[in-house]
Amino acid sequence: MRELGEFALIDRINAGREQAAHVLLGPGDDAALLAAPDGRFVVSTDMLVEGRHFRLDWSTPADIGRKAIAQNAADVVAMGARPTGFVVALGCPGDTPVRVVEGIADGMWLEAVRAGGSIAGGDLVHSEQLVISVTAFGDLGGQGALTRSGAVEGDIVAVAGELGWSAAGLAVLSGGADVSDPAFAHALAAHRVPQPPYAEVIDVFGVHIPNALTDVSDGLLADLGHLAAASGVAIDVHAAALTDPELDAVAARLEADAGQWILAGGEDHAFVGTWSPATALPPGWRPIGVVTAGSGVTVDGARPAGATGWESFRGAGATAEPGER
Amino acid sequence: MRELGEFALIDRINAGREQAAHVLLGPGDDAALLAAPDGRFVVSTDMLVEGRHFRLDWSTPADIGRKAIAQNAADVVAMGARPTGFVVALGCPGDTPVRVVEGIADGMWLEAVRAGGSIAGGDLVHSEQLVISVTAFGDLGGQGALTRSGAVEGDIVAVAGELGWSAAGLAVLSGGADVSDPAFAHALAAHRVPQPPYAEVIDVFGVHIPNALTDVSDGLLADLGHLAAASGVAIDVHAAALTDPELDAVAARLEADAGQWILAGGEDHAFVGTWSPATALPPGWRPIGVVTAGSGVTVDGARPAGATGWESFRGAGATAEPGER
Repeated sequence: MRELGEFALIDRINAGREQAAHVLLGPGDDAALLAAPDGRFVVSTDMLVEGRHFRLDWSTPADIGRKAIAQNAADVVAMGARPTGFVVALGCPGDTPVRVVEGIADGMWLEAVRAGGSIAGGDLVHSEQLVISVTAFGDLGGQGALTRSGAVEGDIVAVAGELGWSAAGLAVLSGGADVSDPAFAHALAAHRVPQPPYAEVIDVFGVHIPNALTDVSDGLLADLGHLAAASGVAIDVHAAALTDPELDAVAARLEADAGQWILAGGEDHAFVGTWSPATALPPGWRPIGVVTAGSGVTVDGARPAGATGWESFRGAGATAEPGER
Repeated sequence: MRELGEFALIDRINAGREQAAHVLLGPGDDAALLAAPDGRFVVSTDMLVEGRHFRLDWSTPADIGRKAIAQNAADVVAMGARPTGFVVALGCPGDTPVRVVEGIADGMWLEAVRAGGSIAGGDLVHSEQLVISVTAFGDLGGQGALTRSGAVEGDIVAVAGELGWSAAGLAVLSGGADVSDPAFAHALAAHRVPQPPYAEVIDVFGVHIPNALTDVSDGLLADLGHLAAASGVAIDVHAAALTDPELDAVAARLEADAGQWILAGGEDHAFVGTWSPATALPPGWRPIGVVTAGSGVTVDGARPAGATGWESFRGAGATAEPGER
């Protein structure tokens, strides 16, 4: 990369890309210009750091690019918005192979288009460690934002998307299990490239509207805790609604606890929301609990033991596993 | 920082802040929500890396925060837009003192408000090196974007803001000169906190409209080179219009070449644009050259010798000085 230089590499990354309709002016000027037909735009930003959020020996560059976009797109969708575009900043060591940067860019483009947008611009700088910063934009289409703060006592808590599989993949990779074993393929794929079920939120706009919505990035109990706190309510989760026999089978192979992955594993970027019991749950959503008076999150009425999710700088809660995240 | 944890530190950074009018929903949910009254928004993103774009032994945390916001705000203003808001992602080593993070946040807020916006959201993660990623938003107020590609043969090239002072400050710091010498105070301040002349662009909206506009971030000749290439024209700069006796005095103290700082020094975030000769230059702008047919940038008709600007991964062009930027 040092040989090619910043400007030549940026040209190469951007060559032949087709911008989404919302991107009125793409890369190449001081700034990009995006449409905001709603007169507002949703925006979320996340930074991913090599060795903590991804590893080049565990994921391909394209996987890493997809994951970086997916987790930001999930945040935008979790507000009830359709992704429209992304800007990215990339810091790389000077000896980073050009193919790594190109692979990350390819993965970013693939996921950006899958989510409904494109990469409207970016920055490329020299750093000691590979660092990816993504900012995602979305359009609410005239609807209200779906925040974490609207849950009401009596609401049904429901989930769309997988839980615990990313944590299972992390356990496979960090535990030294045989990554070529087909039994681990789905867990590994889930960890490398989360698949937020964008359509299960976007395509139910205007009907089946939840009172509150968020994505599962820190872990189900942690994210429900944020939602409960923001809404001033308590949430009780039904453990029986969360069982996953296929995940149990993976856990048995690793002598691990699938329940812990489901309750505390982050990064699947499933969506979790709360609906009035008078509203039918949208297709693709499964009930997992109820909103009650009070505060905090319980599982079958009891405070959960063990880790409840991920927090930077502290590691994974009470279990304090130092696994690379 | 490791002791306090991510969520507590984010709460502390956000406490007592007042969001700008354009920020409809600030930090605390999956994403922020900003107004885009124009139905479009301008967006720019930049990453700053410790040891390359700033040093904690050369600048205060607040200076670093201000600089990070200023350079992104300058990109938005260079499109002809008014800054409305910013999102920031911060990667820090676990042993970063909380006061450093708070200082960066304070500086960011100070400059964000100065530019007309506020910090609408962000991310805080663990990294080995201090890395700051800023994304800035702006509103065009119904006007067309001022790109780099609109310069026309015969246009007057004009500048608003200082040139070369940030490079002078860098020379003071990297050369081991006496930083307490009052003769260096302005250069040091310019390097630590660039002062893009936002008002000289924003307040002339609708009159004195340039054909092309950019900000000086890589160096005057380099940025004029980008503008000339995008517009398909050549630019000739008049050296006599760029002299700065005060900067000459600083250069003399360091046995350096003020002309080189002015032509090739980046990071002042002055603005440079081109106007039809039939349009009066706005207040605060000074003519420095002309747009001609052809390609490339000349100084008094000749190709400049020496470095012409900054490019990541390669260092400062032909002189290849490894100075920390």
